[in-house]
Amino acid sequence: MADKEISQAVISRLPRYFRYLGELKDDGVDRISSQELSVLMQVTASQIRQDFNNFGGFGQQGYGYNVQYLYEEIGKILGLDQTHHLIIVGAGNLGQALANYMNFERRGFLFEGIFDQNPVLYGKQIRHLTVQPMEAMESFVKEHNIDIAVLAIPKTAAVEVADKLVKYGVKAFWNFAHCDLNVPGDIPVENVHLSDSLIKLSYNLNSMGNKVKEDV
Amino acid sequence: MADKEISQAVISRLPRYFRYLGELKDDGVDRISSQELSVLMQVTASQIRQDFNNFGGFGQQGYGYNVQYLYEEIGKILGLDQTHHLIIVGAGNLGQALANYMNFERRGFLFEGIFDQNPVLYGKQIRHLTVQPMEAMESFVKEHNIDIAVLAIPKTAAVEVADKLVKYGVKAFWNFAHCDLNVPGDIPVENVHLSDSLIKLSYNLNSMGNKVKEDV
Repeated sequence: MADKEISQAVISRLPRYFRYLGELKDDGVDRISSQELSVLMQVTASQIRQDFNNFGGFGQQGYGYNVQYLYEEIGKILGLDQTHHLIIVGAGNLGQALANYMNFERRGFLFEGIFDQNPVLYGKQIRHLTVQPMEAMESFVKEHNIDIAVLAIPKTAAVEVADKLVKYGVKAFWNFAHCDLNVPGDIPVENVHLSDSLIKLSYNLNSMGNKVKEDV
Repeated sequence: MADKEISQAVISRLPRYFRYLGELKDDGVDRISSQELSVLMQVTASQIRQDFNNFGGFGQQGYGYNVQYLYEEIGKILGLDQTHHLIIVGAGNLGQALANYMNFERRGFLFEGIFDQNPVLYGKQIRHLTVQPMEAMESFVKEHNIDIAVLAIPKTAAVEVADKLVKYGVKAFWNFAHCDLNVPGDIPVENVHLSDSLIKLSYNLNSMGNKVKEDV
Protein backbone atom coordinates (compact mmCIF):
# COMPACT_ATOMS: atom_id res chain seq x y z
CA MET A 1 0.00 0.00 0.00
CA ALA A 2 2.53 2.56 1.14
CA ASP A 3 5.10 3.87 -1.28
CA LYS A 4 8.55 4.51 0.14
CA GLU A 5 9.29 7.34 -2.28
CA ILE A 6 6.69 9.69 -0.83
CA SER A 7 8.23 12.66 0.96
CA GLN A 8 7.85 13.19 4.68
CA ALA A 9 6.35 16.60 3.88
CA VAL A 10 3.43 14.94 2.08
CA ILE A 11 3.08 12.36 4.85
CA SER A 12 3.01 15.12 7.44
CA ARG A 13 0.00 16.60 5.69
CA LEU A 14 -1.98 13.34 5.48
CA PRO A 15 -3.20 13.30 9.11
CA ARG A 16 -4.64 16.78 8.59
CA TYR A 17 -6.54 15.65 5.47
CA PHE A 18 -7.74 12.68 7.46
CA ARG A 19 -8.97 14.94 10.27
CA TYR A 20 -10.86 17.30 7.93
CA LEU A 21 -12.40 14.43 5.99
CA GLY A 22 -13.52 12.80 9.24
CA GLU A 23 -15.24 16.03 10.24
CA LEU A 24 -16.89 16.38 6.81
CA LYS A 25 -18.08 12.77 7.03
CA ASP A 26 -19.50 13.38 10.51
CA ASP A 27 -21.27 16.47 9.14
CA GLY A 28 -22.92 14.28 6.48
CA VAL A 29 -21.01 15.69 3.50
CA ASP A 30 -20.90 13.15 0.63
CA ARG A 31 -18.69 14.80 -1.97
CA ILE A 32 -16.17 17.63 -1.95
CA SER A 33 -14.09 19.24 -4.69
CA SER A 34 -10.41 20.00 -4.25
CA GLN A 35 -11.46 23.66 -4.55
CA GLU A 36 -13.85 23.42 -1.59
CA LEU A 37 -11.36 21.41 0.43
CA SER A 38 -8.77 24.04 -0.42
CA VAL A 39 -10.89 26.86 1.03
CA LEU A 40 -11.69 24.82 4.12
CA MET A 41 -8.11 23.79 4.84
CA GLN A 42 -6.44 26.97 3.58
CA VAL A 43 -4.03 25.20 1.28
CA THR A 44 -4.04 25.48 -2.52
CA ALA A 45 -6.22 23.10 -4.55
CA SER A 46 -3.15 22.32 -6.61
CA GLN A 47 -1.29 21.17 -3.50
CA ILE A 48 -4.21 18.92 -2.56
CA ARG A 49 -4.28 17.35 -6.03
CA GLN A 50 -0.50 16.93 -6.04
CA ASP A 51 -0.56 15.32 -2.60
CA PHE A 52 -3.36 12.94 -3.57
CA ASN A 53 -1.64 12.07 -6.85
CA ASN A 54 1.08 10.41 -4.78
CA PHE A 55 -1.52 7.80 -3.95
CA GLY A 56 -3.21 7.48 -7.32
CA GLY A 57 -5.45 10.53 -7.13
CA PHE A 58 -8.54 9.10 -5.39
CA GLY A 59 -11.15 10.94 -7.39
CA GLN A 60 -12.56 12.06 -10.69
CA GLN A 61 -11.89 15.66 -11.59
CA GLY A 62 -15.13 17.59 -11.98
CA TYR A 63 -17.09 15.25 -9.75
CA GLY A 64 -15.04 15.96 -6.65
CA TYR A 65 -13.98 13.39 -4.11
CA ASN A 66 -16.23 10.89 -2.36
CA VAL A 67 -15.67 11.91 1.27
CA GLN A 68 -16.30 8.50 2.86
CA TYR A 69 -14.09 6.71 0.32
CA LEU A 70 -11.28 9.26 0.60
CA TYR A 71 -11.45 9.15 4.40
CA GLU A 72 -11.16 5.37 4.41
CA GLU A 73 -8.40 5.24 1.81
CA ILE A 74 -6.26 7.82 3.61
CA GLY A 75 -6.94 5.95 6.85
CA LYS A 76 -5.62 2.76 5.25
CA ILE A 77 -2.55 4.52 3.87
CA LEU A 78 -1.87 5.83 7.38
CA GLY A 79 -2.15 2.33 8.78
CA LEU A 80 -5.21 3.25 10.85
CA ASP A 81 -7.01 0.06 9.81
CA GLN A 82 -4.48 -1.74 12.00
CA THR A 83 -4.09 -1.96 15.75
CA HIS A 84 -0.90 -0.85 17.47
CA HIS A 85 0.27 -1.88 20.92
CA LEU A 86 2.08 0.79 22.89
CA ILE A 87 3.92 1.20 26.14
CA ILE A 88 4.64 4.50 27.83
CA VAL A 89 8.09 4.80 29.36
CA GLY A 90 8.01 7.41 32.11
CA ALA A 91 5.03 7.90 34.42
CA GLY A 92 5.71 11.54 35.27
CA ASN A 93 3.25 14.31 34.44
CA LEU A 94 3.57 13.93 30.71
CA GLY A 95 3.45 10.12 30.72
CA GLN A 96 0.35 10.21 32.86
CA ALA A 97 -1.29 12.84 30.68
CA LEU A 98 -0.70 10.68 27.61
CA ALA A 99 -2.00 7.57 29.41
CA ASN A 100 -5.15 9.47 30.30
CA TYR A 101 -5.82 10.61 26.75
CA MET A 102 -8.40 8.27 25.30
CA ASN A 103 -8.64 9.57 21.74
CA PHE A 104 -5.58 7.58 20.69
CA GLU A 105 -7.41 4.33 21.43
CA ARG A 106 -10.23 5.21 19.08
CA ARG A 107 -7.62 5.26 16.29
CA GLY A 108 -6.27 1.82 17.21
CA PHE A 109 -3.36 2.91 19.40
CA LEU A 110 -3.73 0.77 22.51
CA PHE A 111 -1.73 1.66 25.60
CA GLU A 112 -0.82 -1.68 27.17
CA GLY A 113 1.64 -0.71 29.88
CA ILE A 114 3.42 2.16 31.64
CA PHE A 115 6.85 2.00 33.26
CA ASP A 116 8.95 4.18 35.51
CA GLN A 117 12.17 3.91 37.45
CA ASN A 118 10.79 5.67 40.51
CA PRO A 119 9.67 3.07 43.12
CA VAL A 120 7.23 5.60 44.60
CA LEU A 121 5.16 5.26 41.44
CA TYR A 122 5.14 1.44 41.25
CA GLY A 123 1.59 0.14 41.48
CA LYS A 124 0.04 3.53 40.79
CA GLN A 125 -3.11 3.13 38.73
CA ILE A 126 -3.63 5.37 35.65
CA ARG A 127 -6.91 4.35 34.06
CA HIS A 128 -6.50 0.65 33.20
CA LEU A 129 -2.70 0.80 33.53
CA THR A 130 -0.51 0.05 36.55
CA VAL A 131 2.94 1.62 36.76
CA GLN A 132 5.60 -1.09 36.63
CA PRO A 133 9.37 -0.96 37.18
CA MET A 134 11.59 -0.52 34.13
CA GLU A 135 13.04 -3.99 34.78
CA ALA A 136 9.68 -5.47 33.80
CA MET A 137 9.79 -3.94 30.31
CA GLU A 138 11.72 -6.64 28.51
CA SER A 139 9.33 -9.50 29.21
CA PHE A 140 6.31 -7.20 28.87
CA VAL A 141 7.32 -5.97 25.41
CA LYS A 142 7.80 -9.52 24.20
CA GLU A 143 4.64 -10.96 25.75
CA HIS A 144 2.35 -8.15 24.60
CA ASN A 145 3.79 -7.73 21.12
CA ILE A 146 4.51 -4.05 21.75
CA ASP A 147 5.34 -2.26 18.50
CA ILE A 148 5.48 1.39 19.63
CA ALA A 149 7.24 2.83 22.69
CA VAL A 150 6.33 6.32 23.90
CA LEU A 151 9.34 7.92 25.57
CA ALA A 152 8.26 10.39 28.24
CA ILE A 153 11.54 10.34 30.15
CA PRO A 154 14.38 12.86 30.49
CA LYS A 155 16.89 13.09 27.68
CA THR A 156 19.65 11.75 29.91
CA ALA A 157 17.96 8.32 29.89
CA ALA A 158 16.22 8.28 26.52
CA VAL A 159 19.00 7.14 24.17
CA GLU A 160 19.97 4.18 26.37
CA VAL A 161 16.36 3.12 27.01
CA ALA A 162 15.59 3.31 23.29
CA ASP A 163 18.56 1.06 22.48
CA LYS A 164 17.28 -1.52 24.96
CA LEU A 165 13.75 -1.36 23.62
CA VAL A 166 14.98 -1.98 20.08
CA LYS A 167 16.63 -5.15 21.35
CA TYR A 168 13.38 -6.17 23.06
CA GLY A 169 11.58 -5.86 19.72
CA VAL A 170 10.00 -2.38 19.67
CA LYS A 171 9.48 -1.24 16.06
CA ALA A 172 8.85 2.52 16.42
CA PHE A 173 9.31 5.39 18.86
CA TRP A 174 7.15 8.35 19.75
CA ASN A 175 9.83 10.43 21.43
CA PHE A 176 9.03 13.26 23.84
CA ALA A 177 12.54 13.32 25.32
CA HIS A 178 14.40 16.45 24.27
CA CYS A 179 17.10 14.66 22.30
CA ASP A 180 17.56 12.75 19.07
CA LEU A 181 17.50 8.97 19.39
CA ASN A 182 20.17 6.88 17.77
CA VAL A 183 18.18 3.84 16.65
CA PRO A 184 18.67 1.86 13.41
CA GLY A 185 17.34 3.42 10.21
CA ASP A 186 14.49 0.94 9.86
CA ILE A 187 13.00 2.03 13.19
CA PRO A 188 10.86 5.13 12.62
CA VAL A 189 11.00 7.88 15.24
CA GLU A 190 8.51 10.68 15.56
CA ASN A 191 9.82 13.43 17.80
CA VAL A 192 7.59 15.74 19.80
CA HIS A 193 10.05 18.33 21.03
CA LEU A 194 7.81 20.66 23.02
CA SER A 195 10.58 23.12 23.82
CA ASP A 196 11.53 23.42 20.16
CA SER A 197 7.92 24.10 19.26
CA LEU A 198 7.58 26.80 21.91
CA ILE A 199 10.87 28.35 20.83
CA LYS A 200 9.67 28.46 17.23
CA LEU A 201 6.57 30.28 18.43
CA SER A 202 8.82 32.73 20.24
CA TYR A 203 10.70 33.39 17.00
CA ASN A 204 7.51 34.01 15.06
CA LEU A 205 6.15 36.27 17.80
CA ASN A 206 9.39 38.19 17.85
CA SER A 207 9.53 38.51 14.09
CA MET A 208 5.88 39.59 13.97
CA GLY A 209 6.58 42.23 16.60
CA ASN A 210 9.44 43.61 14.51
CA LYS A 211 7.17 43.67 11.49
CA VAL A 212 4.26 45.45 13.14
CA LYS A 213 6.48 47.70 15.25
CA GLU A 214 3.82 48.05 17.88
CA ASP A 215 4.53 50.10 20.95
CA VAL A 216 1.30 49.53 22.83
CA MET B 1 16.79 41.31 14.05
CA ALA B 2 14.50 38.75 12.49
CA ASP B 3 13.94 38.73 8.77
CA LYS B 4 10.41 38.02 7.58
CA GLU B 5 11.56 36.33 4.38
CA ILE B 6 13.11 33.34 6.13
CA SER B 7 11.18 30.15 5.49
CA GLN B 8 9.39 28.28 8.26
CA ALA B 9 11.48 25.22 7.36
CA VAL B 10 14.67 27.06 8.31
CA ILE B 11 13.04 28.45 11.45
CA SER B 12 11.92 24.95 12.43
CA ARG B 13 15.54 23.86 12.38
CA LEU B 14 16.87 26.72 14.51
CA PRO B 15 15.75 25.33 17.90
CA ARG B 16 17.62 22.11 17.13
CA TYR B 17 20.83 24.02 16.34
CA PHE B 18 20.29 25.95 19.55
CA ARG B 19 19.91 22.71 21.52
CA TYR B 20 23.08 21.12 20.07
CA LEU B 21 25.12 24.28 20.57
CA GLY B 22 23.92 24.51 24.17
CA GLU B 23 25.12 20.96 24.77
CA LEU B 24 28.47 21.65 23.09
CA LYS B 25 28.86 24.78 25.21
CA ASP B 26 28.05 22.83 28.37
CA ASP B 27 30.63 20.24 27.31
CA GLY B 28 33.25 22.99 27.10
CA VAL B 29 33.62 22.98 23.29
CA ASP B 30 34.89 26.36 22.03
CA ARG B 31 34.84 26.01 18.25
CA ILE B 32 33.11 23.69 15.81
CA SER B 33 33.24 23.41 12.03
CA SER B 34 30.10 22.98 9.96
CA GLN B 35 31.55 19.56 9.05
CA GLU B 36 31.74 18.46 12.69
CA LEU B 37 28.31 19.89 13.44
CA SER B 38 27.03 18.05 10.37
CA VAL B 39 28.23 14.67 11.67
CA LEU B 40 26.84 15.37 15.13
CA MET B 41 23.41 16.51 13.92
CA GLN B 42 23.18 14.18 10.93
CA VAL B 43 22.38 16.94 8.45
CA THR B 44 24.63 18.02 5.57
CA ALA B 45 27.26 20.68 6.19
CA SER B 46 25.89 22.51 3.18
CA GLN B 47 22.45 22.70 4.79
CA ILE B 48 23.99 24.11 7.96
CA ARG B 49 25.89 26.77 6.01
CA GLN B 50 22.79 27.62 3.96
CA ASP B 51 20.65 27.89 7.08
CA PHE B 52 23.19 30.11 8.83
CA ASN B 53 23.61 32.29 5.73
CA ASN B 54 20.01 33.41 6.26
CA PHE B 55 21.31 35.23 9.29
CA GLY B 56 24.59 36.52 7.92
CA GLY B 57 26.66 33.37 8.30
CA PHE B 58 27.97 33.71 11.88
CA GLY B 59 31.46 32.41 11.27
CA GLN B 60 34.64 32.36 9.29
CA GLN B 61 35.06 29.47 6.97
CA GLY B 62 38.12 27.42 7.87
CA TYR B 63 38.11 28.54 11.48
CA GLY B 64 34.74 27.03 12.31
CA TYR B 65 32.13 28.66 14.46
CA ASN B 66 32.62 30.07 17.92
CA VAL B 67 30.18 27.91 19.89
CA GLN B 68 29.35 30.43 22.63
CA TYR B 69 28.83 33.25 20.12
CA LEU B 70 26.73 31.12 17.79
CA TYR B 71 24.63 29.86 20.71
CA GLU B 72 23.94 33.39 21.90
CA GLU B 73 23.24 34.76 18.43
CA ILE B 74 20.77 31.99 17.58
CA GLY B 75 19.20 32.50 21.00
CA LYS B 76 18.69 36.17 20.20
CA ILE B 77 17.23 35.40 16.79
CA LEU B 78 14.80 33.03 18.49
CA GLY B 79 13.79 35.76 20.92
CA LEU B 80 15.17 33.81 23.88
CA ASP B 81 16.85 36.91 25.29
CA GLN B 82 13.33 38.12 26.07
CA THR B 83 10.81 37.06 28.68
CA HIS B 84 7.38 35.81 27.70
CA HIS B 85 4.32 35.67 29.90
CA LEU B 86 2.01 32.71 29.35
CA ILE B 87 -1.30 31.41 30.54
CA ILE B 88 -2.48 27.82 30.19
CA VAL B 89 -6.11 27.40 29.22
CA GLY B 90 -7.32 23.99 30.35
CA ALA B 91 -6.20 22.38 33.60
CA GLY B 92 -6.81 18.77 32.54
CA ASN B 93 -4.02 16.21 32.40
CA LEU B 94 -2.15 17.93 29.60
CA GLY B 95 -2.53 21.44 31.02
CA GLN B 96 -1.26 20.23 34.37
CA ALA B 97 1.63 18.36 32.78
CA LEU B 98 2.69 21.53 30.96
CA ALA B 99 2.32 23.63 34.12
CA ASN B 100 4.57 21.17 35.93
CA TYR B 101 7.30 21.28 33.32
CA MET B 102 9.94 23.66 34.56
CA ASN B 103 12.35 23.69 31.63
CA PHE B 104 10.26 26.28 29.80
CA GLU B 105 10.91 28.80 32.54
CA ARG B 106 14.65 28.48 32.14
CA ARG B 107 14.18 29.72 28.59
CA GLY B 108 12.16 32.74 29.68
CA PHE B 109 8.67 31.32 29.20
CA LEU B 110 6.91 32.17 32.46
CA PHE B 111 3.61 30.50 33.26
CA GLU B 112 1.58 33.14 35.06
CA GLY B 113 -1.87 31.56 35.30
CA ILE B 114 -3.98 28.50 34.53
CA PHE B 115 -7.69 28.47 33.79
CA ASP B 116 -10.44 25.90 33.45
CA GLN B 117 -14.19 25.86 33.10
CA ASN B 118 -14.64 22.98 35.54
CA PRO B 119 -15.56 24.34 39.02
CA VAL B 120 -14.16 21.19 40.63
CA LEU B 121 -10.69 22.38 39.63
CA TYR B 122 -11.00 25.99 40.85
CA GLY B 123 -8.43 26.68 43.54
CA LYS B 124 -6.40 23.59 42.72
CA GLN B 125 -2.70 24.31 43.17
CA ILE B 126 -0.24 23.27 40.43
CA ARG B 127 3.21 24.39 41.52
CA HIS B 128 2.94 28.17 41.97
CA LEU B 129 -0.29 28.39 39.95
CA THR B 130 -3.89 28.27 41.16
CA VAL B 131 -6.62 27.13 38.76
CA GLN B 132 -9.01 30.01 38.08
CA PRO B 133 -12.35 30.14 36.27
CA MET B 134 -12.33 31.07 32.58
CA GLU B 135 -14.26 34.24 33.43
CA ALA B 136 -11.17 35.57 35.19
CA MET B 137 -9.06 35.38 32.01
CA GLU B 138 -9.88 38.76 30.53
CA SER B 139 -8.70 40.88 33.43
CA PHE B 140 -5.80 38.52 34.13
CA VAL B 141 -4.46 38.72 30.56
CA LYS B 142 -4.59 42.50 30.64
CA GLU B 143 -3.11 42.91 34.12
CA HIS B 144 -0.25 40.47 33.61
CA ASN B 145 0.67 41.45 30.07
CA ILE B 146 0.16 37.90 28.82
CA ASP B 147 1.58 37.48 25.33
CA ILE B 148 1.23 33.71 24.78
CA ALA B 149 -1.78 31.48 25.50
CA VAL B 150 -1.34 27.73 25.68
CA LEU B 151 -4.54 25.99 24.61
CA ALA B 152 -4.93 22.63 26.33
CA ILE B 153 -8.69 22.41 25.83
CA PRO B 154 -10.89 20.26 23.56
CA LYS B 155 -11.24 21.35 19.94
CA THR B 156 -14.93 22.14 20.46
CA ALA B 157 -13.95 25.12 22.63
CA ALA B 158 -10.59 26.14 21.18
CA VAL B 159 -11.61 28.36 18.26
CA GLU B 160 -14.02 30.44 20.35
CA VAL B 161 -11.61 30.77 23.28
CA ALA B 162 -8.81 31.81 20.93
CA ASP B 163 -11.00 34.54 19.41
CA LYS B 164 -11.71 35.91 22.87
CA LEU B 165 -8.06 35.81 23.88
CA VAL B 166 -7.07 37.79 20.79
CA LYS B 167 -9.53 40.48 21.88
CA TYR B 168 -8.01 40.45 25.38
CA GLY B 169 -4.59 41.12 23.86
CA VAL B 170 -2.87 37.72 23.53
CA LYS B 171 -0.23 37.87 20.77
CA ALA B 172 0.52 34.19 20.07
CA PHE B 173 -0.92 30.71 20.59
CA TRP B 174 0.64 27.39 21.46
CA ASN B 175 -2.24 25.19 20.41
CA PHE B 176 -2.67 21.62 21.64
CA ALA B 177 -6.36 21.46 20.65
CA HIS B 178 -6.86 19.15 17.70
CA CYS B 179 -8.10 21.81 15.32
CA ASP B 180 -6.83 24.78 13.36
CA LEU B 181 -7.42 28.15 14.97
CA ASN B 182 -8.88 30.98 12.98
CA VAL B 183 -6.99 33.96 14.37
CA PRO B 184 -5.74 37.01 12.41
CA GLY B 185 -2.64 36.54 10.28
CA ASP B 186 -0.43 38.64 12.54
CA ILE B 187 -1.01 36.26 15.46
CA PRO B 188 1.41 33.34 15.20
CA VAL B 189 0.11 29.89 16.08
CA GLU B 190 2.27 26.88 16.77
CA ASN B 191 0.22 23.68 16.69
CA VAL B 192 1.12 20.56 18.63
CA HIS B 193 -1.27 18.01 17.19
CA LEU B 194 -0.34 14.91 19.12
CA SER B 195 -2.76 12.65 17.23
CA ASP B 196 -1.34 13.78 13.88
CA SER B 197 2.16 13.05 15.08
CA LEU B 198 1.21 9.56 16.28
CA ILE B 199 -0.63 8.89 13.02
CA LYS B 200 2.43 9.92 11.03
CA LEU B 201 4.46 7.44 13.08
CA SER B 202 1.88 4.79 12.24
CA TYR B 203 2.34 5.54 8.54
CA ASN B 204 6.11 5.27 8.76
CA LEU B 205 5.87 2.05 10.77
CA ASN B 206 3.44 0.63 8.25
CA SER B 207 5.55 1.69 5.29
CA MET B 208 8.69 0.28 6.94
CA GLY B 209 6.88 -3.03 7.56
CA ASN B 210 5.95 -3.24 3.87
CA LYS B 211 9.53 -2.52 2.92
CA VAL B 212 11.11 -5.09 5.19
CA LYS B 213 8.32 -7.64 4.64
CA GLU B 214 8.85 -9.17 8.02
CA ASP B 215 6.60 -12.01 9.10
CA VAL B 216 7.89 -12.50 12.61
